[in-house]
Amino acid sequence: MTTVSRREILQASALSAAALGAAALAAPAMASPLDHARMLPEGLPPREFAAAVAELRAIVGQQWVFADADSTLPYTKSLIPDPDHRHVPSGAVAPASVEEVQAILKVANRYRLPLWPISTGKNMGYGMATPASSGQMVLDLKRMNRIIEIDAELGTALVEPGVTYQDLRDYLDANNLPFWLDVPTVGPIVSPVGNTLERGVGYTPYGDHFFMQCGMEVVLADGTLVRTGMGSVPGSTSWQAFKWGYGPYLDGIFTQSNFGVVTKLGFWLMPAPPAYKPFVVQFDEMDDVAKITDTIRPFRMNNLIPNGVLIMGAAYQLAMFHRRADFWTETRQIPDAVVKAEARKRGLGMWNTYFALYGTDEIIAAVEPIVRGAFEAAGGKVLTATEMSDNPWFRHHASLMKGGMTLEEIGIVRWRGTEGGMVAFAPVAPAKGTETRGQTALAKEILAKYDFDYAPAYAVGGRELHHIIFLLYDKGHPAEERKADACVREMITRFAERGWAAYRTGVSTMDLVAQQYGDANRALNARIKHALDPNHILAPGKQGIA
Amino acid sequence: MTTVSRREILQASALSAAALGAAALAAPAMASPLDHARMLPEGLPPREFAAAVAELRAIVGQQWVFADADSTLPYTKSLIPDPDHRHVPSGAVAPASVEEVQAILKVANRYRLPLWPISTGKNMGYGMATPASSGQMVLDLKRMNRIIEIDAELGTALVEPGVTYQDLRDYLDANNLPFWLDVPTVGPIVSPVGNTLERGVGYTPYGDHFFMQCGMEVVLADGTLVRTGMGSVPGSTSWQAFKWGYGPYLDGIFTQSNFGVVTKLGFWLMPAPPAYKPFVVQFDEMDDVAKITDTIRPFRMNNLIPNGVLIMGAAYQLAMFHRRADFWTETRQIPDAVVKAEARKRGLGMWNTYFALYGTDEIIAAVEPIVRGAFEAAGGKVLTATEMSDNPWFRHHASLMKGGMTLEEIGIVRWRGTEGGMVAFAPVAPAKGTETRGQTALAKEILAKYDFDYAPAYAVGGRELHHIIFLLYDKGHPAEERKADACVREMITRFAERGWAAYRTGVSTMDLVAQQYGDANRALNARIKHALDPNHILAPGKQGIA
Repeated sequence: MTTVSRREILQASALSAAALGAAALAAPAMASPLDHARMLPEGLPPREFAAAVAELRAIVGQQWVFADADSTLPYTKSLIPDPDHRHVPSGAVAPASVEEVQAILKVANRYRLPLWPISTGKNMGYGMATPASSGQMVLDLKRMNRIIEIDAELGTALVEPGVTYQDLRDYLDANNLPFWLDVPTVGPIVSPVGNTLERGVGYTPYGDHFFMQCGMEVVLADGTLVRTGMGSVPGSTSWQAFKWGYGPYLDGIFTQSNFGVVTKLGFWLMPAPPAYKPFVVQFDEMDDVAKITDTIRPFRMNNLIPNGVLIMGAAYQLAMFHRRADFWTETRQIPDAVVKAEARKRGLGMWNTYFALYGTDEIIAAVEPIVRGAFEAAGGKVLTATEMSDNPWFRHHASLMKGGMTLEEIGIVRWRGTEGGMVAFAPVAPAKGTETRGQTALAKEILAKYDFDYAPAYAVGGRELHHIIFLLYDKGHPAEERKADACVREMITRFAERGWAAYRTGVSTMDLVAQQYGDANRALNARIKHALDPNHILAPGKQGIA
Repeated sequence: MTTVSRREILQASALSAAALGAAALAAPAMASPLDHARMLPEGLPPREFAAAVAELRAIVGQQWVFADADSTLPYTKSLIPDPDHRHVPSGAVAPASVEEVQAILKVANRYRLPLWPISTGKNMGYGMATPASSGQMVLDLKRMNRIIEIDAELGTALVEPGVTYQDLRDYLDANNLPFWLDVPTVGPIVSPVGNTLERGVGYTPYGDHFFMQCGMEVVLADGTLVRTGMGSVPGSTSWQAFKWGYGPYLDGIFTQSNFGVVTKLGFWLMPAPPAYKPFVVQFDEMDDVAKITDTIRPFRMNNLIPNGVLIMGAAYQLAMFHRRADFWTETRQIPDAVVKAEARKRGLGMWNTYFALYGTDEIIAAVEPIVRGAFEAAGGKVLTATEMSDNPWFRHHASLMKGGMTLEEIGIVRWRGTEGGMVAFAPVAPAKGTETRGQTALAKEILAKYDFDYAPAYAVGGRELHHIIFLLYDKGHPAEERKADACVREMITRFAERGWAAYRTGVSTMDLVAQQYGDANRALNARIKHALDPNHILAPGKQGIA
C-alpha cells in the first residue's frame, strides 16, 4: 500500500538519500520527534534542521509543527505520479497569524529552510500539498481561516487562505446574502485563495478566478507586509472595489509564483440572478469537438453565453460515476466505440457541452433561440432540465454552473486500479475548431502508446481553450505510476512542439513546462525572485523558478 | 506666449539651472545642434550628453534625434501646470524598430542617460509627452506604428506603440472587419498601447483597457526582449487569446511603470452587436450623484448595463462646447445655480448619465424596462435618441459608447483664458452613493478656495468609481498656473486623508500620489525596479519610482 510506502520513505531516507538527491537525518541528539531518518532540505544538516524545528515550535506551539513521519504523512499524499519520490516534504508548520508567518520566515532565512506555502493543499491534479522538491517544509496556512469581510452592497469578499468555498457558502447562507460563488472542481474542500493563486477556473460567469480577484495581502520573504492595489492606502474603502491601484499592478506576480506568501485575498461575488437556465448540447462523434468550439466562440466573445463553458468528453463523464472495469477489461486504451456506446446507454453524447443563461426569464427567452439555433445548425442536440432532470451528469453541471458545492467529480480518480491516481495536463489553445482536432488526436495517440484512456474536457474561456486531459492511472501499481509519469512528460513535450503549452502543471513537471516558455521569461522571473527572496527560501522550484 | 517661454527655458537653462535643479550645457565644442544652452539630465556633463546624442544619431539617423531647442519644443508642450519648469525634456529620439530600441538602451546605460518612453504622447490631463523630471530624453515610439496582426476569428489585435485608435479604426473599416474599438477621450490621436499602459478607460463594454489587454512584448533596460504570456512559447498561436500564461503573470508590472519599454501590445476587440441603444438619464441636483451611483451599481455588478458608464457633470458638459465667459465673468467659482440654468437651456441635467444596451432588439427590449424603471424610481429622466437625437452631448456620448472617433472633448481645455490648461485628478472610491457625496463636496470646496470651477465626471466600473475632476485653468497666466498647481496638490493631499487616492496622476504629482500608497508598496516597486533596471535609466520618477 502506498500509505505504508510513504512512511517507509520518510523513515528510510537515510538509505535512499543519494538516490533521492536529498540529505538525510539519522537520529539527531536533541529532538525526539526527529528520531527517525527522514527527508531533509538539500544542504541542511540534520542538527540544524532540528534546531529550526525547535524554533518553529516556539513560534506556533509544539502541536503545530509536524516533523515526524506520522504527522507529516498527510502532506505527502498526492495523486500525481512521483515514482522516484522527488516531492516529499520534510515536515509542516501551521501558523495562526500573519505575525507567525513573519516569524517563521525569519527562522527560515536564518537556517535556509525552504518553505512550501499551501492554503488547504487540495491542488488535486497537480500534486496536492507536495513541494516542487523533497525536503521543503510545508507552510500550511489552514489555521488562518477567517472570512474577514463580505461587503453585501458591493458583492466582495476578503478571506484568509484556510477558508474553503464551503465555509464561504455557509457564511453567505447564514447571513442571507444573495451571492453565488464560483467553485472549481471539488470546490467544497478547496480554498478560494489557493485556487485563485494557481489561476484555477470554474463554471459560472465568474469562472476566471484571477480575473475576479481584487486586492491581496502578501508577506515577502524578508517579512515585509504588503497590501496590493488600494489596500496600501491608509483608510481606503476601495481595496476590494478596484483591482489595479496606482503604479505597477503587482497582484499578478504573486500568482503561480514563489515571490511571497499571500495571507489575504479579495475577490468579487456574483449577484444571484432572478432566473437561471442550464443547457447541455450533445454531439456524437469525437471529431465534433471542432464544430462545437467554432459554435461556442462567438457566443463567448459577445457574452451571450457568459459562463465558463465545459465541453465534457464521454470518458471523463463516465469516470465520475463508474469504474473502467465496468466497461473494459483490456489493458489497452478503451476504444471510442465502447465509450460512445456506454455513454449513449446513460443518455450522454460523445461530447457534452454545458452552458447556462442567467438574468430574467425575459432576457433568457431573448437569448435562448439564438444560441439554440446555432448549436442545432451545427448538428447538436440541445437539452435542458425538461429532458435531463434525472440525468446525474446534467444535475452535476447544472449545480456547478450556479456555484453548487459538490465532490462528485472526485470519482474519476477511482477509474483505474485499487489506489487511485490522476494527473492533469492542461495545454492552452485559441478557441478554434482546427486546434481542438489536432489536440485531441495528439492526446489520444500519446495516451494510447502508454495504454491510458483519453478522458478530456475543454474549458472555453473568452477566446481560448484549456484542454484538460486527465490521465487516470493506478498509483498502487509502481510500474503503472512510472508509465503515467513518462506519459505526461511526453504529452507536455510533444504538445509544446506544436506550440501548445500548459497554463498550469503538477509539481513534478514545473521545470519542464517552464523550459517551454523560453529563456527570457525564465531569466526575468529569476531576477524578480532574487530581488524579493535573495535566500530562495520560498517554494524553490515552483513553476520552475529557483 | 508660452511657446516662446518654453524655448527660452530650453535656451536659458544655463542661467536657471540651479533653480531648476538640473545641469545645463553652455555651447559644447562638438555638436552644432547642441549649441544652445539647454536642460540636461542631472549629473550628465554637456560633453557626454553631446557624445550620447551623436551615438543615438548613428543608430536612428540624424533626423530622428531631436536635441536642439526648436525640434524639442513639441515634446515640452503640456496642459498641466508646471510653474517651475520641472518637466522639460533634454530632447527626443525616435527609433523605428525593436533593434533600434535595444541599441538606444545600450547607449543610455553607458552614459546614464535617462529615457522617457512615450507612444504617441497624448496623455492629455497628465502631462502629454513630458517626463517626470527635467533632462530626461523622450524615447518617442511613434515611428513604430505597425498593426501587426488582427485575428478576425478571435477578435484580437497586436499593435506597436505608434498606432492610434484612428489607424486601427481605418484598418478595420478598410478590411470590413465587424469590430468596435473602445476609445478613451480624444481617441483618434491616442495610442491604444500608451492608453492601456497608463490603465486608461473608455465607454463600451470593453472600457477597462487593461482588463482587455492580452500579451505584450517588452524590452528590458538591458536590451533583453521578453514576450509575456503565451508569447514566449515558440510557435504558440495563443498570445492574444490567453492573458495569463504560465508562472507569475507579468504584464501588470509593465503598466503605469518604468520597468521596461513595451514595444508590442495585444488586446481584444468587441464584436459589433446587431443592435445598440444609447441612453442618457438626467438628474437636476448636485446631490443626486449619490442616488445615481446607487442605482447604477447593481446593474454594473450583474452586467445588465455592460459598458463603462459616465456620470457627466453639467459644467464638464458645458465646457466641451462653450467658454466660461459665455456664462460667468467673475473670478470666483461658477455657482451651481448658473451651471444648472445654462445646462437646462441646452437640454442637459446637472448630472447626465450615459449608458447603453447592446445585443439584439429582443435582448435590449428585455433589459430596458428593468433599467429604466430603476432610474425613474430614483427620480431620473430617462431619454433616448427619440428625444435627444439633436442634442450634441447625447450624440457625442452615443458615438463614444460605440467606439466612435471624436475629438470634441478637447474643447474643455479652452474653458478659461487664452492659452488653455487642464489637469485631471482622478480619485478612486467604491461605487456607493455615500462616497460620491463626500467627494463632490470636498472637490467643490477646494476648487472654490482657488477660484476654479468644478467640472466633474464619475466613471463607473464594475464596483468602483473614478471621480474625474478636471481642473480647467489658463496656462497663459503664470499666477493662475501656480494656483492650479497648488490646487491639484491640495486636492490630492486632502482626498487621501479621507482614503481616496488617485488611480493615475500627472507627471508633476507622481511622487506625491506614490507617498499615499505607503512605504511598503514603494519599497517593493523599488526592489523590482533595481533588479530590472540597475542603472535607473528608464523613466526615473514615473509613478514615483526612482
